[in-house]
Amino acid sequence: MKILIVGANGTLGKAIAVELGARHEIVGASRSHGDVRVDLRNMASVEAMFRDVGPVDAVISAAGKVPFAPLGELTEAQYLEGLQDKLLGQIRLVGAGTPHVRDGGSFTLITGILTEQPILAGAVASTVNGAVEAFTRAAAIELPRGIRINVVSPNVLTEAMHAYAPYFRGFEPVSAARAAMAFSRSVEGRQTGQVYKVW
Amino acid sequence: MKILIVGANGTLGKAIAVELGARHEIVGASRSHGDVRVDLRNMASVEAMFRDVGPVDAVISAAGKVPFAPLGELTEAQYLEGLQDKLLGQIRLVGAGTPHVRDGGSFTLITGILTEQPILAGAVASTVNGAVEAFTRAAAIELPRGIRINVVSPNVLTEAMHAYAPYFRGFEPVSAARAAMAFSRSVEGRQTGQVYKVW
Repeated sequence: MKILIVGANGTLGKAIAVELGARHEIVGASRSHGDVRVDLRNMASVEAMFRDVGPVDAVISAAGKVPFAPLGELTEAQYLEGLQDKLLGQIRLVGAGTPHVRDGGSFTLITGILTEQPILAGAVASTVNGAVEAFTRAAAIELPRGIRINVVSPNVLTEAMHAYAPYFRGFEPVSAARAAMAFSRSVEGRQTGQVYKVW
Repeated sequence: MKILIVGANGTLGKAIAVELGARHEIVGASRSHGDVRVDLRNMASVEAMFRDVGPVDAVISAAGKVPFAPLGELTEAQYLEGLQDKLLGQIRLVGAGTPHVRDGGSFTLITGILTEQPILAGAVASTVNGAVEAFTRAAAIELPRGIRINVVSPNVLTEAMHAYAPYFRGFEPVSAARAAMAFSRSVEGRQTGQVYKVW
C-alpha cells in the first residue's frame, strides 16, 4: 500500500511510519518538515498536497493542535482556533482526499482520551475530539467506493509526559509505538466508523 | 426554581415548559417569540438576555440548527454554520450564563441521537452533537459553585416525523413530552456531566 501520513514529523507520526513502513510505502507530510508540506487549516494547501502525492491507499492524520485554558477564561477565538485546526483540518483532509484514495482505501483520524475523560483546562480539546469522533461515524456511512474511515483515540503518550504529566496525573500513558498499532488496525483491517481507544 | 428555557417556542421547548412549569417558574426565550428574545449566535444578545432575566436556578437549551447535505457536497461554510449555531451558541449560553446561575444550579443542553447513530446527509449534525456532548463532560469538572451541566440526546421527535420520516426510517420516535422528562431529570436531579439518552 501507499500510505500518506500527515503529521509525520511528530512523535506519533514517526511511530506510525515505523509500524507501517515495514510493510508499505510511506509518504510523510507535515507543516514544516517531511516529503510534503501541508497546512490543514488551508484547503488550497491540502488540495495541493494530494495533487503532489497522487493516488494513495490510506491517509493517516496524526496532526491537530488545540489551545488549553481554564473554562472560565476560554474565548470564542480559542474555540474557533481548535475547531479550525484539529476538527476542520481533518475534515478538509477527508474532503480533499477522497478523490485521491483508491477503492477500499481508508482514512484514519486522531482524537484522544479527553473526548471521554476530561482534564482541567481541556474543554477545547474535549469539544474538538468529540466532534471528530462523531464526524467519523457519520462519514463512514457516506464515503464512496468502499472507502473506510476510523479514528484513533490514544491516552497521553509516554513520550509527552515530560511536558504533560502535571495535567494527566493518574492517567496511564501509552507509548507512541502502541498507539501506532491502532493505526495499523484501521489501515490493514476492514472496519469502518470505529473509534479505536488506546487506553 | 426559576428556570430559563431557550428555544421555548419550539415543540420540545413547549413540552419542557409543560413538564417543569407545573412545579417551577418558567421564563421562555427564543429567536423570534417568547418573554425574551435571544440569538445564540451573538454573544451580546446572550449577555443581554441574562441581564434581563436576572438570577436563575436552571438554564435549559432546546435550541440549535444545523444544515443537512450529502457528505460530498458539504462546504466549509455549512460546517461553520452548524458549529456557530448549535455548538458555539450553547457554549455562549454557558459562558455568559454562569455568573447568573445560582449556587448548585444547572445547565441542560441539547444534542440528539445522530451523535452515535448517523443518517445520510447528517454529518454536520453528528459532528456538532459530538462536540456538545464532549464539551458538557469537560465543563462539568470546571464550572464553579456547584453548578452542574448535562445534555439531553433525544431520538427523532414524534411531532417532527411528518417532516423527517424519510430520513429516520427505522428510528423509534419519542414524544416531546418524554424527551422533556430528561430535562427534568437534569434540572431536578443532582448529576453532572451526563448525557441523558432518550432512545
